[in-house]
Amino acid sequence: MKLLRVGAQGAERPAILDAGGRVRDLSGQVSDFAGDGVSPDALARIAALDIDRLPVIETSERIGPCLAWVPNFLCIGLNYARHAAETGAKEPAEPILFSKTTSCLSGPNDPVIIPRTSLKTDWEVELGVIIGRDTLYVSEADALGHVAGYCVINDVSERSFQAERGGQWTKGKSAPSFGPIGPWLVTADEVPDPQTLDLSLALNGETVQSSNTDDMIFSVRQIVSYLSQFMLLRAGDIIATGTPSGVGLGMSPQRFLKPGDVMELTIEGLGTQRQEVVAAS
Amino acid sequence: MKLLRVGAQGAERPAILDAGGRVRDLSGQVSDFAGDGVSPDALARIAALDIDRLPVIETSERIGPCLAWVPNFLCIGLNYARHAAETGAKEPAEPILFSKTTSCLSGPNDPVIIPRTSLKTDWEVELGVIIGRDTLYVSEADALGHVAGYCVINDVSERSFQAERGGQWTKGKSAPSFGPIGPWLVTADEVPDPQTLDLSLALNGETVQSSNTDDMIFSVRQIVSYLSQFMLLRAGDIIATGTPSGVGLGMSPQRFLKPGDVMELTIEGLGTQRQEVVAAS
Repeated sequence: MKLLRVGAQGAERPAILDAGGRVRDLSGQVSDFAGDGVSPDALARIAALDIDRLPVIETSERIGPCLAWVPNFLCIGLNYARHAAETGAKEPAEPILFSKTTSCLSGPNDPVIIPRTSLKTDWEVELGVIIGRDTLYVSEADALGHVAGYCVINDVSERSFQAERGGQWTKGKSAPSFGPIGPWLVTADEVPDPQTLDLSLALNGETVQSSNTDDMIFSVRQIVSYLSQFMLLRAGDIIATGTPSGVGLGMSPQRFLKPGDVMELTIEGLGTQRQEVVAAS
Repeated sequence: MKLLRVGAQGAERPAILDAGGRVRDLSGQVSDFAGDGVSPDALARIAALDIDRLPVIETSERIGPCLAWVPNFLCIGLNYARHAAETGAKEPAEPILFSKTTSCLSGPNDPVIIPRTSLKTDWEVELGVIIGRDTLYVSEADALGHVAGYCVINDVSERSFQAERGGQWTKGKSAPSFGPIGPWLVTADEVPDPQTLDLSLALNGETVQSSNTDDMIFSVRQIVSYLSQFMLLRAGDIIATGTPSGVGLGMSPQRFLKPGDVMELTIEGLGTQRQEVVAAS
């Protein structure tokens, strides 16, 4: 299933794509997509609905973030070998964990806002993993059974905030609009192998990131199991699984976002995001 | 006001201390303490109630975390000069931000669980700041007006996970039970100056941390303003403002928690926590 949320900011309603690609309104049929709203039981209830009898929503409506809220927005750093190389870092021995604030979440096509005092706002296309149930000390063999689905994420990053303002990356990962997710939460049954997906990002029409999730250093299965050794993952948590090479930080000369730029991000089977870049007011 | 949440895990109800120190049930009077439930409007509604007419709750009931959920659990690292020195770090030029997962939240007297494979579980008494409204680009002059209140936090930390397992501190800060908060959310009107509070932690009756918030490198006012330059703080967010010297990591020889240990944490005017240490099952 391809689940989405449609409507003005703060007033989105849950919806689903039907077989013909139309958006069908799930309001009143299910709770919003967040927490237990993406549990196996909740997804089974949606799967049991007769989708073609639900009201059609006009495609001109805004698409919001595919989750209403998230308990934790977790991220893996330097998880593609060529990206690690372009940032000057060596390949990590264990997954590098950091987090984004949950207040950075935005819709897949909402503007990306360059923060005040920003010097180096950058892009990162990533495969997002959405957890479906409480997960602690799960084995690699069982880990994918704890995944509700997948989505496209732009892990927007301010490199000077991230690396030049004192310790820890969260500071450069968390500004409002730095977390476009969606357009869809694609349920795990439609992604039998998350390590075979093409992903790319184009800046003003020029492809700058182009890779495949088979280049990940740590697989989704490994990441979910690994993180669950350190913390309780909750239903509705997001894990951004790292970005491939081709970010602005790694270019020569370096290149960063400016107002008017347009980013388009695509992951095979998970849809496309398109963001215009604007300055903070 | 001293606000708290009382009841079994997951079934806590909001409550308040009356002038005589009795716990009064706020169920049905207010929404739970989280998000807009700690906004200025919500706190004003509680202040207008006739507390002495509310039902008394027996003090034998468990006290839960003073917030039902938090959008973000943010932390400042190395914010007391002597603690920075004991960890071997130099005093930071800007506040160091990291985060704990929100799934680590627990009640002030709940057991602290040593994770499987832990080598170095440690303690950190900290002044917790609870944000009361959306906060972005706030000045230092206005920052304290965005604070709903304060609480005691034990920023329980696994040092080997934090520092020896690859980048970024979140990994060592997030296990279940690593975030006892409370017993109370003490509203800001009762803490006219957050930089004058004695705080201490005793391990098995021996005082190991003893300091005052006047030793902070960055004040609460500075921290709230500073973070709001990088991210949107939300109502109900927690900021743990750093720990003073006296953690196990800084002792010679180093000393870490083991099952059966008891921690008691106190901050002037904010109450006392008491946790027994147990092993993960």
